[in-house]
Parts: sequence; structure tokens; C-alpha cells
Amino acid sequence: MDEFTLTIIGSGSALPMHGRHPSAQVIQYDDLCCLIDCGEGTQERLRPAGVRPFQIDIILISHLHGDHIFGLPGLLSSYTHLGRTEPLSIFGPVGLKGFLESIIGYTEMTVSFPLSIIEESPVGLNRIVVRENIEIWTFPLYHRIACNGYVFRELSSNIRLNKDRLHEYGLTPVQIKAVKRGEEIEHSRGRIPSSVFILQPLPPVSYAYCSDTRFDQCLLTVIQGVSVLYHETTFMNELEEMADHTGHSTAGQAGMMAAEAGVSCLITGHYSSRYKDVQPLIEEAGVNFRHVIESEEGKKYNLRNLAKGLTH
Amino acid sequence: MDEFTLTIIGSGSALPMHGRHPSAQVIQYDDLCCLIDCGEGTQERLRPAGVRPFQIDIILISHLHGDHIFGLPGLLSSYTHLGRTEPLSIFGPVGLKGFLESIIGYTEMTVSFPLSIIEESPVGLNRIVVRENIEIWTFPLYHRIACNGYVFRELSSNIRLNKDRLHEYGLTPVQIKAVKRGEEIEHSRGRIPSSVFILQPLPPVSYAYCSDTRFDQCLLTVIQGVSVLYHETTFMNELEEMADHTGHSTAGQAGMMAAEAGVSCLITGHYSSRYKDVQPLIEEAGVNFRHVIESEEGKKYNLRNLAKGLTH
Repeated sequence: MDEFTLTIIGSGSALPMHGRHPSAQVIQYDDLCCLIDCGEGTQERLRPAGVRPFQIDIILISHLHGDHIFGLPGLLSSYTHLGRTEPLSIFGPVGLKGFLESIIGYTEMTVSFPLSIIEESPVGLNRIVVRENIEIWTFPLYHRIACNGYVFRELSSNIRLNKDRLHEYGLTPVQIKAVKRGEEIEHSRGRIPSSVFILQPLPPVSYAYCSDTRFDQCLLTVIQGVSVLYHETTFMNELEEMADHTGHSTAGQAGMMAAEAGVSCLITGHYSSRYKDVQPLIEEAGVNFRHVIESEEGKKYNLRNLAKGLTH
Repeated sequence: MDEFTLTIIGSGSALPMHGRHPSAQVIQYDDLCCLIDCGEGTQERLRPAGVRPFQIDIILISHLHGDHIFGLPGLLSSYTHLGRTEPLSIFGPVGLKGFLESIIGYTEMTVSFPLSIIEESPVGLNRIVVRENIEIWTFPLYHRIACNGYVFRELSSNIRLNKDRLHEYGLTPVQIKAVKRGEEIEHSRGRIPSSVFILQPLPPVSYAYCSDTRFDQCLLTVIQGVSVLYHETTFMNELEEMADHTGHSTAGQAGMMAAEAGVSCLITGHYSSRYKDVQPLIEEAGVNFRHVIESEEGKKYNLRNLAKGLTH
């Protein structure tokens, strides 16, 4: 079964403090390797987190605030210095193209690979990427400037073979391939349907990225029922007014959103630099929702496990 | 006597590798705190190197290649988030203003302090900053795009009191102040000129920053006789053609420049990521010049000591 993982590269908000860095994370599924947001210094933190920078073929930018994009020019420049030739697509809100083209122009940067910059102003859910068994959709968040969220939807989970049955019937590699194609098997015991050798499929897994956003129940229409929800938790409830004023959410609000959306797991993040210890944020989110995870930089999370209630 | 120090923040060139980061260094003298170049991630490396980010009141940018400026937008953004109100002046080549204004515009960055962006296209030596006892001058380097070098010139070294004499004559604090003003002292032994209590002044110290540049003897007209020269050493001599083609220098050429300019000390840097170990670069520069120093990130160098032949 294909791995479906999330690696946290940066878990902080505007100011790099307490060993936390600005927003960046990586989603990997089959041959998809997708960087979401790219705060300053992201390129240096990929390798230590086990992500080879050249694997990345899609970058999704939520919005044009510096703590989500100031690492992007340096990453593109390094790709060229390292001789990248594979195409790269960057999705983000309107303005992204102008921002990047302006920097590329002023710094006389050469780009050694096909670069597509795709601006999206989603209304509801827009599908932007289709791969063999996974799709990426974008939707609007509620921040001070145009800000896009993203959902990754696995279409179906891969076929899971019943290894005990395969062993019991002593199937040959050729017969196992036939099982995977859904064909009947010729066997000394007679003709056997492939379903005998196949386990009940697991439900497909999905992941939504919501940062930065004011608490807004309109989000429910697009994130309802996703398996794992990343929702920013910039502030504690005691700063709810500031959260609203700056277009952010509190940890308590993120917990409420997770509960109302009926997700299996909430991942917190985008922690304000005023909190040295983020445990109180995790606990506040946990008042409204049972399965809350802290974003730990450099850590890779198995989204299938998180969806099952595990912690990594 | 005022300290005159150089702190290396980033010693690498375009690619962050082997624990080296893109260009940045800090010159401190009296109340002057000047950041030179600002590669990606500079803001995070200031404090660990003992530089308080708010001390910086002048930023000098050599040129608009990303490895010298991609840390600048994040630093400005953090200043605002931290509530800076003190003015900041940024000097650099033409294009700097457009680059920063474009980013400030696209990211809707607010700037909480008076920000001056001053573009210079020096011909020969242009004086850009005058402080009580130090001046900063800019001059053209020879790179692929417009690139400015900088010289810091102490005007005179501060008065050095002869402490043994002060003790011998038992001068009062009021009398010591009079000595510093150059006045005669009324004393039980008679009227004594202030010069009796004052040591021979040390020669003033100067520092030149040359990165990035092709080896060009035209530089001698502006750096002749500076005390300490920082000159880029991107490549080894065996890549002289590549150095020339990309507008850079070899370590051997930097050593020749230091020798011809009659400086007291050469600081190397802007090392290519192809060299894991920079010792061969130091040694190559040392063939032509005796007092060569490696740029070590996070290290503070006393420029008076370097000018005297010491190593830090």
C-alpha cells in the first residue's frame, strides 16, 4: 500500500523563535512529493528531515505573507545551481506570479528547469492536480489577504492481499498478478475468484491544510470528513480578539473545527512566537477534540496511522 | 579605545552546504553596527553570533544576487513584528529599492520604522556614511551585475592615556578629563602639558569588503593600504577560467591582491560549495601573502588585532 506521509519542516508563525521556523511541510504519496508553503530557510531543513529537495515536483503556496514564501526564491535559485531539469509547478493565490517574476528579474536569476506558476482564486473547491490515485483541491481560507487551503484526497486505497490465504493456496507469482488484476485463478482445488485472496479495502485517506485562517464555519463545507486536518493554532483562546483581528485562529477554535468537521485527527501548528511551550495550545485544542497532534519539526507522520488514532 | 570588530555570519556562496551559509557579516565600531549583505537565514544567525538584531542601524548590500539579499525581506519583516521604531538605512546598487518595494508590496508588509533605501552607483570612492570617528565609503567591484564594495575608515584612533603617569602624578578625575580635552594641568609640580599623560596614538584601522568580484587590479586604487581586506576566494586557481567567467576570484588571486595592496591581513570567504574543506583555499592564498584568515561563521574578529598580525 502506498505510503501517505506528512513531514513538518516549519511549525512557527512570523518570527523564528524557540527553535521553530516559519511554515513549510511536505506531503508524499507514491511519486508525488509536494511542498506546502516555503518559509525562509526551508531549503536547508529539507534534507535533515529526510526529504530530498529534487523529489519535490509540486509546491503549494497558501498566501503571500513572508513567513510562507520567503524561502521560495532561495529554493528556486538552488535548484538552478544544482542543475535541476525536472519540471516544477507552483500553485498559489493571485500575485504569486508577479512576486516570483519580480524577484527573478531583479536578481537576474536563471531558471534551469520548466517552471509553471499557476494562480488560483478558488470559489468552493477547485481541483488542481490529478495523479493516478490522488487528487489535490484548493479552497479559500479567511485571512487578511487572499489565502488558499488545500485538500489531498486518495481516490481508493490500494489492493491489500490476504497473505495467509496466498500461503494456504500456495499461489505462484503469476497467479498473484492475476489476483491483482481481479481474475479467476485456475487451481488444483478448482476455479477460485480473486476476491478470496483480497482483504476488505481500507477507507481512502485525505488531508486538509488550513493555514492561515480566521475561525469560520464556512470551512466545514470543504473539510467535512477529511481523515486528518492541519488547522493553524496561532493563539490561545485568551487572545481570541487578536486572532480574529489578525485573521488567525485559537487552539480552542481549531479543536471545535476538528470536532464539527468529524475528522479523525487534528494537527496543530503556526504557533505564535509568544509561546515558548506549545503544550498549553495542544491541551486547549484537546478540550473540544480528542485526537490532537503537535507539529514537531523534522518529524514524518504516517497519515494512515493518524487517521486510525495513532500518534505518528 | 573603541572596539572595531568583524563578525562572520555567512561564509559560503550560492548554495548552503557543509554548514556554511550565504554571505553576511557585521562590523561594529562604537555605536555603529553595520550588517554587510544578508543571505537567506541571516536573521536567525545574528543572536547566536552575539549580535543583537536591533543594534543594526545600517545595512550595506553588495549586489542583488540572491545569496546576498534573500535574508533581507525576512529581517525587515521581523523588525516590524518585534516593533522596531529606530531608523534603518540600507545602501546598495541600483535596483535595490525596486526589489524591496516590490516584495513589500506583494507581501503587504508593514514597516514599523523609518526605512531609507539608498542606491549608489559609485565611480571611484564615494563616501556614504560619516560618524564621529569612522566613515564608510563605497566603490565598484567587477562582477556579472552591478556590485559595490565598501571601506570602513577609522579617522584617528582614540586618545590612549598613559596610566602609569596618571598614577605617578595622582591626577583627579576632573584633571583626567582636562587631559582628554588637551588642556594644561595645574599641579603641585607646576603647569604640565596634557601630552605628558598621553601615549603615541596607534595608527587608525581600516577594513575593505570585496565580494563578489573578478580579480582586477583597478581595485588597488581604492583598497591600497587598508589594514584588513576581506576578498572573496570562491574558487581554487585550477578553476581560474570559471572564476573569470562567473565574475569571481580564486584564492591565489586574492592573495596576490592582498600583497599588492600592502594590507596587513587578508580574510577569505564566499567559498564555493564544491569545497567541503576550505583549508586548501587558505593555503593557496597564503602562497602570495603571509597573513591569511579563514572566515569562520559565528566568530568575532578584532580588526585591530588582525591589523597587528594576530589571528582573532
